[in-house]
Amino acid sequence: MIYLDNAATTFPKPESVYRAVDDCLRNYCANPGRGGHKLSLKSGRVLLEARELLAELFNADSPENVILTQNATEALNLAIKGFLNAGSHVITTSMEHNSVMRPLKILEERGIETTVVQCNEYGEIDIDSIKKEIKKETALIVATHASNVVGTITPIEGIGNLAKRYGLTFLVDASQTAGVYQIDMEKMNISMLAFTGHKSLMGPQGTGGLCIREGLKLIPLQEGGTGSKSESLYQPDIMPDRYESGTHNTPGIAGLCAGVNFINSKGIDTIRSHEQELTRYFLDGLREIKDVRVYGTKEIEKQAPVVSINIGDIGSSEISYILDETFDIATRSGLHCAPMAHKTIGTLEQGTVRFSFSIFNTIYQVDTVLDAIAHIAREL
Amino acid sequence: MIYLDNAATTFPKPESVYRAVDDCLRNYCANPGRGGHKLSLKSGRVLLEARELLAELFNADSPENVILTQNATEALNLAIKGFLNAGSHVITTSMEHNSVMRPLKILEERGIETTVVQCNEYGEIDIDSIKKEIKKETALIVATHASNVVGTITPIEGIGNLAKRYGLTFLVDASQTAGVYQIDMEKMNISMLAFTGHKSLMGPQGTGGLCIREGLKLIPLQEGGTGSKSESLYQPDIMPDRYESGTHNTPGIAGLCAGVNFINSKGIDTIRSHEQELTRYFLDGLREIKDVRVYGTKEIEKQAPVVSINIGDIGSSEISYILDETFDIATRSGLHCAPMAHKTIGTLEQGTVRFSFSIFNTIYQVDTVLDAIAHIAREL
Repeated sequence: MIYLDNAATTFPKPESVYRAVDDCLRNYCANPGRGGHKLSLKSGRVLLEARELLAELFNADSPENVILTQNATEALNLAIKGFLNAGSHVITTSMEHNSVMRPLKILEERGIETTVVQCNEYGEIDIDSIKKEIKKETALIVATHASNVVGTITPIEGIGNLAKRYGLTFLVDASQTAGVYQIDMEKMNISMLAFTGHKSLMGPQGTGGLCIREGLKLIPLQEGGTGSKSESLYQPDIMPDRYESGTHNTPGIAGLCAGVNFINSKGIDTIRSHEQELTRYFLDGLREIKDVRVYGTKEIEKQAPVVSINIGDIGSSEISYILDETFDIATRSGLHCAPMAHKTIGTLEQGTVRFSFSIFNTIYQVDTVLDAIAHIAREL
Repeated sequence: MIYLDNAATTFPKPESVYRAVDDCLRNYCANPGRGGHKLSLKSGRVLLEARELLAELFNADSPENVILTQNATEALNLAIKGFLNAGSHVITTSMEHNSVMRPLKILEERGIETTVVQCNEYGEIDIDSIKKEIKKETALIVATHASNVVGTITPIEGIGNLAKRYGLTFLVDASQTAGVYQIDMEKMNISMLAFTGHKSLMGPQGTGGLCIREGLKLIPLQEGGTGSKSESLYQPDIMPDRYESGTHNTPGIAGLCAGVNFINSKGIDTIRSHEQELTRYFLDGLREIKDVRVYGTKEIEKQAPVVSINIGDIGSSEISYILDETFDIATRSGLHCAPMAHKTIGTLEQGTVRFSFSIFNTIYQVDTVLDAIAHIAREL
């Protein structure tokens, strides 16, 4: 099979990730931070290693400021709900995923106002249009680093500068970019960075996190046992325990460490170059096929390795089904959990067929996929 | 090493659990419920299988009523915060873990009143003392099925009957019992059952869940992408999507399925008998050792396979350290994230050294441990 659903989860993972998970489970998976015995300490070191690797990768303030969560959704919920108070105003973009939009919709019922800045039909945002919406009550700007629907990259450094100038907190959803694009919280003025472990960070599902700036204090989503200050009935204030209750996904986090180590050994720039080459080749090939409509900027410097298309008026699910059944090519169809992004690019009815690449895809695979699309476009 | 910290997390796991996780990661770990392609569907079936296995194990209303979470802490937070409204009154016991007490403490600040019913020094609760606390505003009773500190078993069927008689919702924390003790939500009148996957259900860390009665509607802890009703900016109402946002820990859940299948193949009663035999043998041996104080009921029918002790006035951490360093025996010391339980049994200062058994421990190991304890008691 040719797997091109890497924007949903990367598959396969590096061999080292499989081995790290298995080694953890078989050899030392005690409860991290809960006991003083050797295995518990070894499990605890996995969590520390993950925080260190991720803090370095994103240039976060410190490893303790890396909060480990189940997924990016939990990270975004913690950031959004933990930061905003009744009466606050938040600015976001029309390209956001439901993991941003749905928490914001709920918060509207709790007295928090949201302004959604409209992107153009390619998914591009104009920073001035964000600036225009800033008012006295504005506390937060939330933006995805790259659209999960069309891959369009958001100019986060520019938005970060804007946020800094106006004293606003800036939350970035790096679900589609962490591990492939350079992210520097300091340089880009990112106050909170939400990421998932199982996409381009190459870790297993069940991992993710939120890096927060030193001094930021959020209301925790959950309270519970932290293995620290156990004598207290109140959640401890120390980082990262304040936000991490209950037992971690230690084997998953061991795999995430291996994923980040894999990225570091390959080099982010090498990975990005490879994926950009595949994307460019794919976009070039698509131009030659009649009846194929490609969404997004179609400019490789402005686009993460995610390409959404449609063929004529045919439903995206039908195309995706044929690709899977007849050609053994895995893609995703439909709305990709981001209805406003589909409205923005004009595909709320039809959805899109989405192709997303990883470091493990090849030009040869892209050729096969182009042939399959050409075949379908001819036949239907 | 002899691992006796199974109440924190079971170790080792069955071989089938390691294999299930590895097989998932290597062979089909796409994003469940997000794509229509073969791998995504196969991942989705793992989630369904887990729901089916767990619904059957606990006699829950239906597989859709099994909400999969990261751990028991998330399940308890969802149950407690999602159910209680300002003005409500909740009754709980003095043996609860901080995963119950800390959420309740936070809710006190939001206008929810908690009454903690005092257990006796063995951790036993008198059902009449719960009954006495019921008032007009009482909406919920929360009780652990067995203390994580001393193993004392709560008469949940009796409390369930009481809850039913008074029309109250009943939440049980089965973190220490699921997979070893029979739990029947219907028969025991349990409205919500929180469980962890990585203890006696033999699954990997990063798994757990909450089974809720048909018709119960909670406020979700998180909103986000669900792979369903993607056109809507509002969280869908359907079960279990309403409570499950973001990507699941699919490999962990595959391991959890293998864990539950392992339990089913062994038989819960066989597992419990084995663990009870170890506990009985351990308790009998401890009686012979001078200066050892054993907490809890010391009656095997009233006690899960968790035994807490102290030796003279020596700090529990020191004993646990010696057991690990000198005898290669892994235990947990200190307060076990349950300060009120320690106050109840009188060990808030000293903590306890906790020994907890799994199906993989042996009488031979218990003998070695008894020798080590006797040695330490003699020397110190």
